Amino acid sequence: MSRLLYLQSGGPTAVLNTSAQGVIETARAMGVPVCAAADGLFGLLGGRLLDCDAPSAADIAQLGRLPGAAFGSSRDILPPYDEAPQLWQQLAEVLQRHGIRQLLLNGGNGSMETALLLQQLAERFSLPLSVVGIPKTIDNDLEATDFSPGFPSAAKYLASSLREVLFDMRSMAQGRVFILETMGRHVGWLAAAGCLAALPDEAPPLLLLPEVAYDEARLFAAVRRQIAAQGYCAIVVSEGLRSADGRFVAQMHADKVYGHEQLGGAGNWLAQRIQHGLRLHAHVAVADCLQRAARHLLSAVDARLAYEVGRKAVAWAVAGQSGVMAAIERFATADGCDWRVVPQPLAAVANLERALPAAFIAADGLDVTAACRAWLQPLLAGEVALPFADGLPAMRRLHFPPLAATA
Amino acid sequence: MSRLLYLQSGGPTAVLNTSAQGVIETARAMGVPVCAAADGLFGLLGGRLLDCDAPSAADIAQLGRLPGAAFGSSRDILPPYDEAPQLWQQLAEVLQRHGIRQLLLNGGNGSMETALLLQQLAERFSLPLSVVGIPKTIDNDLEATDFSPGFPSAAKYLASSLREVLFDMRSMAQGRVFILETMGRHVGWLAAAGCLAALPDEAPPLLLLPEVAYDEARLFAAVRRQIAAQGYCAIVVSEGLRSADGRFVAQMHADKVYGHEQLGGAGNWLAQRIQHGLRLHAHVAVADCLQRAARHLLSAVDARLAYEVGRKAVAWAVAGQSGVMAAIERFATADGCDWRVVPQPLAAVANLERALPAAFIAADGLDVTAACRAWLQPLLAGEVALPFADGLPAMRRLHFPPLAATA
Repeated sequence: MSRLLYLQSGGPTAVLNTSAQGVIETARAMGVPVCAAADGLFGLLGGRLLDCDAPSAADIAQLGRLPGAAFGSSRDILPPYDEAPQLWQQLAEVLQRHGIRQLLLNGGNGSMETALLLQQLAERFSLPLSVVGIPKTIDNDLEATDFSPGFPSAAKYLASSLREVLFDMRSMAQGRVFILETMGRHVGWLAAAGCLAALPDEAPPLLLLPEVAYDEARLFAAVRRQIAAQGYCAIVVSEGLRSADGRFVAQMHADKVYGHEQLGGAGNWLAQRIQHGLRLHAHVAVADCLQRAARHLLSAVDARLAYEVGRKAVAWAVAGQSGVMAAIERFATADGCDWRVVPQPLAAVANLERALPAAFIAADGLDVTAACRAWLQPLLAGEVALPFADGLPAMRRLHFPPLAATA
Repeated sequence: MSRLLYLQSGGPTAVLNTSAQGVIETARAMGVPVCAAADGLFGLLGGRLLDCDAPSAADIAQLGRLPGAAFGSSRDILPPYDEAPQLWQQLAEVLQRHGIRQLLLNGGNGSMETALLLQQLAERFSLPLSVVGIPKTIDNDLEATDFSPGFPSAAKYLASSLREVLFDMRSMAQGRVFILETMGRHVGWLAAAGCLAALPDEAPPLLLLPEVAYDEARLFAAVRRQIAAQGYCAIVVSEGLRSADGRFVAQMHADKVYGHEQLGGAGNWLAQRIQHGLRLHAHVAVADCLQRAARHLLSAVDARLAYEVGRKAVAWAVAGQSGVMAAIERFATADGCDWRVVPQPLAAVANLERALPAAFIAADGLDVTAACRAWLQPLLAGEVALPFADGLPAMRRLHFPPLAATA
């Protein structure tokens, strides 16, 4: 019996399981048996596979509504053959034993490197295997795709939350500063999304991006201006903000206080600086995992394309295409833009990191350009209703049975 | 011309403006002119009043959908007469000049003390004034009312967000700890709401309440148990967590590191302790103002009662009732419970603080009881749709014109 194998890899997003739904429903429609690795590559190495054909169609639809990574994920990556020949051997045996003919890896740029290596593994061991990547990351740092599924929903969550908080700020606007710390360790796409929060008649939030070295004099001048003009100031800071010498500001702080341990993060570091330098108290919100798990506030564009990349990946892999990622391409339409899914070579994505382009960063380094706004806005479009029960998101864990051992 | 005056006071909630909508629409229906103080008591002292009769009915409906305090709020309180006779004189003149016959103060327990003093002011200066309080606070620390409008929505936001994050936690459950810091400086109602997040088949989040002195040995033992049993552990910590000597843990931390300045808060402090003591890395989310501004995730019960307390306050004040707060009373129904609005003396609320009762705190101090869950759950019921436009909450600022000077 031949099978399609699906793996989740890296940090979850709000729509990762929507891609899984797309994979499973498409494979079912094509009559292709599907299994998934428990805990991603980590579980695959241990031969722990789950049977995706057992659950009902209703369960698979429910799967698509769950945040997290329903099959379990891991940050493991496959080392090159020379470093771990036994691991490769072990993996080849697992794939062969279960008749895996298609392998779909749903992850970020590190995972696409692993996908490339899995393709090499197939060649080395003469396995009839198609390997296709499915993009995923809230950081939006994947090359060769217009956006990464997961990012638009996280961006919508951050911009919507900040828009709401701005009403709160205005209510007691006597020198108030609000800091929202976002994820994005190396790139500023998530922090940039804060630009959409402001209303037309107010100053835009100040954005502190990893792509722009922290310039305190410039920031403080801008904070003073906004406080003078409107009484309050919102700042969106990426967890990955760095000083001019390239070090993470949060790390500098931690070094100073506790040796090498992590403390507080960029948001709290910044609140300290503002307290010291401007004598202004700052509120700090740290969105952390909330921004990637907020299933109650999805972008409909995100959900649609997350499903579509899963669907296309199955179709291509079953047709024998290999070594590609299901990338998203934006195209203009009469009334704006739309997206389609196209294959891109894994090598154009693997281990590369897409930062905010210079053309998206405003001259003062504290805002994004109109071009960036125009690029971002359509990604947030549309809402997806989430069922609630007893006042809370109606969600239940799904249990996939282990795949029965096959000859 | 005689008028009704409405004031917002203290920190905003997601439904404070829903009470304002209830006030204005009810007064309009009764033919009573309405004005509001700009920036609460602070603006009232300066004679800055806004005309609430000018905006259209559609604007007032829109008002009810905005987070924040649309008229501006302040934390000012009225000092007793002996401390500030001139201020009292000044205030009496403002009220007289604008023909204020009803004064509605929408705030927390400090504001209800101010409402009491305003009633004394009316007596002292022989003003024909009715003073009625409208409750509001996400902290839920008001006495004499089943709940405070604003709390159920914040509780729903926190519990829903944590439920979503628990799916994220399970996805990579290899010794993961997640900490959610909530507001609630002195009382644990908001942190307690975290109890509703867990699914029936998992360990409940560990709750660190201000009512229970921090006991590290007990907490660490519980974290170890949950990690061993399910691989992950969620902790909800109130910003007001205290040590056995009664000091805020966040303040202890700040004292140690930076003298007397605020740093990081209870969530980061706890992550540090867990890193040191258990060698586990903890994710920390700090909801801060997001939890009181999250208009996109309202409790329908909260929205309905927030409107109703505004409506009743107008009816009573116009009928000449004074010195009361529009309190909320829960009563049993055939299929659960419902609420009605009843008058309670301001003196039963002013400057009192309602902590979580002992019967709501579990024996181990790290959870709440079944009685608490049963009390909380109905408050979260029902959702309220928020219109979105271009992928973001459709919200605009409302501008109320200054009240024209009257003879």
